[in-house]
Amino acid sequence: MPKPLILVTNDDGITAPGLRALVGYMKELGEVVVVAPDSPQSGMGHAITLDNTLYSKKVAIDLEGGALVEYSCSGTPADCVKLGLRELLDRKPDLCVSGINHGSNSSINVIYSGTMSAAIEAGIEGIPAIGFSLCDYSWEANFAAAEDHIKTIVREALAHGMPKGVVLNVNIPKLPKEALKGVKVCRQARANWKEKFDKRTNPNGKDYYWLTGEFELLDKGEDTDEWALANGYISLVPTQFDLTAHHAIQDVNNWNL
Amino acid sequence: MPKPLILVTNDDGITAPGLRALVGYMKELGEVVVVAPDSPQSGMGHAITLDNTLYSKKVAIDLEGGALVEYSCSGTPADCVKLGLRELLDRKPDLCVSGINHGSNSSINVIYSGTMSAAIEAGIEGIPAIGFSLCDYSWEANFAAAEDHIKTIVREALAHGMPKGVVLNVNIPKLPKEALKGVKVCRQARANWKEKFDKRTNPNGKDYYWLTGEFELLDKGEDTDEWALANGYISLVPTQFDLTAHHAIQDVNNWNL
Repeated sequence: MPKPLILVTNDDGITAPGLRALVGYMKELGEVVVVAPDSPQSGMGHAITLDNTLYSKKVAIDLEGGALVEYSCSGTPADCVKLGLRELLDRKPDLCVSGINHGSNSSINVIYSGTMSAAIEAGIEGIPAIGFSLCDYSWEANFAAAEDHIKTIVREALAHGMPKGVVLNVNIPKLPKEALKGVKVCRQARANWKEKFDKRTNPNGKDYYWLTGEFELLDKGEDTDEWALANGYISLVPTQFDLTAHHAIQDVNNWNL
Repeated sequence: MPKPLILVTNDDGITAPGLRALVGYMKELGEVVVVAPDSPQSGMGHAITLDNTLYSKKVAIDLEGGALVEYSCSGTPADCVKLGLRELLDRKPDLCVSGINHGSNSSINVIYSGTMSAAIEAGIEGIPAIGFSLCDYSWEANFAAAEDHIKTIVREALAHGMPKGVVLNVNIPKLPKEALKGVKVCRQARANWKEKFDKRTNPNGKDYYWLTGEFELLDKGEDTDEWALANGYISLVPTQFDLTAHHAIQDVNNWNL
C-alpha cells in the first residue's frame, strides 16, 4: 500500500517554524508535499485571489526536514490549496494539514483564520483536513510539546476518515508537554473581539488606524474550546462549511415575505 | 421614536451601483450611514487588516441618493464594519445591510464572500444583518427588479429582529421584476468550484496563473438556494457563524485521542 499523501500548508508563510515542525511530524505518517504562501497571510479568512495574478515556484526550504517537494505561492492559504490540488500535485492527497499556526484559532477566531480556511478549502474538495494552531504568537514557540497529540489526531483521521462536510479545528494551549492533559472534542465558544482602533497621523499629516482589540469570551460552557484550552486540554472542534442555521429556518418562515 | 439607523456596506466598493441602489431603498426605511471599501474587495472572504494601516475618510459620493454620511475605508468589508461600529458611528446601528453584490453569493460562495463577511461581522456584534446579492456580475445590472422584495425583507427583519447568532444571505435571480416569484427560505446547497488555472507567461518570462473555474452543484434538493434561484425565487438562507458541526461531535468522540 502506498503511504498516504499529505498536503501541508499554513497562513504564516512557507518558512514559518510552525509549518516546519508540522512537516517533520507528518513525514513519519506519509509522503509530504508543501504548498504554502510565500509571505504571511494571517487574518486572511477565506480570501481568494480573483483580480490578481498568482505566482508559484518549486522551492527547497528544508527538504531534509521531510517534504518530498515544496511549492511557494503568492496567494492566500485557500489559493494554495486550490492550486495544489488542481495544478501542482500528481494525485489527490489523503489528508491536508494546515499550520501549525503561530497563535490561537479557537472560538470566533476561526472566522478570520487563514489556517482554517485552507483546511476548509480541502474539506470542500472532500479531503480530510485539519487545522492546527498553538496559542503562542512567538516565532520561537514550543511546537514539540504537542507532537505526540498531533500525530495521534492525524493517525485517527487517516484511520477513520472525516465525517462528511467536516474539518477539524485543533488548538493547543501554550504549556509544556507534561502539563498537556490530552485532547477534548468541543464546540466553538461564543466570543467576539472588542476592537480598539489606534489612531495615528502619518508623516504627511494623514490620519490612519491600526486594528487592535481584546478578546471577549461570552460563553460559560464547559464543553467549549475556550474552556478546554484554559484547563490544559488541546481543543478539537469539528467544523463545518454548511453555514445554514437550520434551526432558524422555521422562525424566518413565519415572516411576511 | 427615532428612525432606525441602517449601516450600509459592500465588497464591490463605495461607488458600486449595487450599493447606490441599496442606499436608495434604505433611505425610505431609516437613517442611512455608508462605510464601504474604497476599492473592490470581491473574494476577500472574512479577511481583516492586521499587518497594515487602515485609512478612512468622509466622502460625499451621492448624498442626495440618501445617506446621511458616507465613509470610505482602505480595508476589507469586515474592516469597514469594525471601523464603523467602533470609530465612525455615533450609536449602534439597528441593522446592517451589505451589497447589493454584483454576482451570486449562494451556496458555497458564501465562504468566499466579502459581502457576507460584512454581514457576519455585524451579526457577531449582535446587530441584525443581511447580505444582498444579485446573480448578475454586470455593472449595469437591474437591481430595481427586486426593490420591493428587498424592502419587505428589511422591514420584516426590523420588526422581528434576527434569531440569535444568525444573519441572512439573500440572493436574487437575474430576472425582470414580473418574473420574480417571491422569497423562499432555504438551506445552503452543497456545491463547489472546479477550478481551472489559466497558466500564462509574463513579459519577463515568468509563469503565472489566473484562477478561473466552473461552479458544480452537488445537491438535488428542492429546499436549497440554488433550486430557488433556478426556479425564479429570491433565496434567503439563515446563516450562522458558530461553525461547530454539532452532529459530528459524537463521531469524533469515539476516536482514540
